Amino acid sequence: MTGPASFSASVLTLFPEMFPGPLGASLAGKAVLEGLWSLETVDIRGFASDKHRSVDDTPFGGGAGMVMRPDVIDAALHQAHSDGRPLIYLTPRGRLFDQSVARSLAKADGVTLLCGRYEGVDQRVIEAWDMDEISVGDFVLSGGEAAAITVLDAVIRLLPGVMGSPDSLSEESFEQGILEYPHYTRPEKWNGRTVPEVLRSGHHKNIETWRQDQAETITRSRRPDLWDRFVAAETNKKG
Amino acid sequence: MTGPASFSASVLTLFPEMFPGPLGASLAGKAVLEGLWSLETVDIRGFASDKHRSVDDTPFGGGAGMVMRPDVIDAALHQAHSDGRPLIYLTPRGRLFDQSVARSLAKADGVTLLCGRYEGVDQRVIEAWDMDEISVGDFVLSGGEAAAITVLDAVIRLLPGVMGSPDSLSEESFEQGILEYPHYTRPEKWNGRTVPEVLRSGHHKNIETWRQDQAETITRSRRPDLWDRFVAAETNKKG
Repeated sequence: MTGPASFSASVLTLFPEMFPGPLGASLAGKAVLEGLWSLETVDIRGFASDKHRSVDDTPFGGGAGMVMRPDVIDAALHQAHSDGRPLIYLTPRGRLFDQSVARSLAKADGVTLLCGRYEGVDQRVIEAWDMDEISVGDFVLSGGEAAAITVLDAVIRLLPGVMGSPDSLSEESFEQGILEYPHYTRPEKWNGRTVPEVLRSGHHKNIETWRQDQAETITRSRRPDLWDRFVAAETNKKG
Repeated sequence: MTGPASFSASVLTLFPEMFPGPLGASLAGKAVLEGLWSLETVDIRGFASDKHRSVDDTPFGGGAGMVMRPDVIDAALHQAHSDGRPLIYLTPRGRLFDQSVARSLAKADGVTLLCGRYEGVDQRVIEAWDMDEISVGDFVLSGGEAAAITVLDAVIRLLPGVMGSPDSLSEESFEQGILEYPHYTRPEKWNGRTVPEVLRSGHHKNIETWRQDQAETITRSRRPDLWDRFVAAETNKKG
């Protein structure tokens, strides 16, 4: 049953014990057992060359915190990274991760993810390796590990064979550029609240119209930024 | 040493084995041992009332995937949620999580996080509990678990006593509304690349100017959206 893994993820971290974390169960966990992807963690500390095994040092120019040394990261990458694969450094300074980045990564045969800690990684090793700097959002984490797990979770579910039904992928949030419509299931009456009439009508055209309207309304109200991009894209299509 | 935990996180999930994941080590792991925060996971499946322990059902109106039942989520919340705490449902349909949301959560005495799976949670239970719907970004995860870990990681490091130096917090990305300047550490010469002269000058004013310039340049080029907001905020201050 289990052929060779089709997608290989390598994660460079000071905390290999943080993995696989949530990726060890459910969808991603099953997909590992089925050989659809594999995870290798590389302990950056193993590449420290001095007797104290130090991986970081104080920043030139002063300031709080420590910076990860370029020579140590470089040595770890020489062992862990395969040419031709995306090499991503997870940092709040990067371009924003989104569903289109996830789709693009899911087409590669693997990815190398570098997790920073402390104040981050020496700028020279980022440039020397021409890393793709990616941020999962406008917030600061204790390190890149939770971001790496987030990126892998989003990518793995897009790999061929991982999700049961390709239909589930095409209707969800961001695949159409807007947020998804609300969902209802049994019981039909719950706690004084009923399921909207139209969803119980069996009238497919009306259901589709209602859902599209709901999706557009919630996007306009909660995410005017997404809405503006959606409108611009729709206008382009028509023009 | 260990007094009562000052911040209590409750996570409702179908996969309690995904926790603590990366929150069990490093900064967050140490902070648990020091009593600075605590994590309770609540297995949603334990609140299914039928003999098959079903937590989900097909969506009214048709479509792919399954929807989590309102009665099951409601029962789990009655046990797990404490009034007065933020109640967050992690969903791509929510408002965007960012550093200001993290700061606001870090001021509470705890948080309840509901992790959806499948197509999401019945809309009625979201409304009945007036949940704060939060998204960690414009991508789709296999469930809310990686998002919950991300949110908790960002919040925990802001809790009093968790980070060693408050200085580290004030200079980093997003605390000033723009991305952070690049970092350099030893060795001073590495792989043909040297540390920028100004950082080795010891001239504090010049270093500060260089760093601010670098931070503004990278923000303008990588994140024009952030840059526009930063410029607007600076203009407001002056006006």
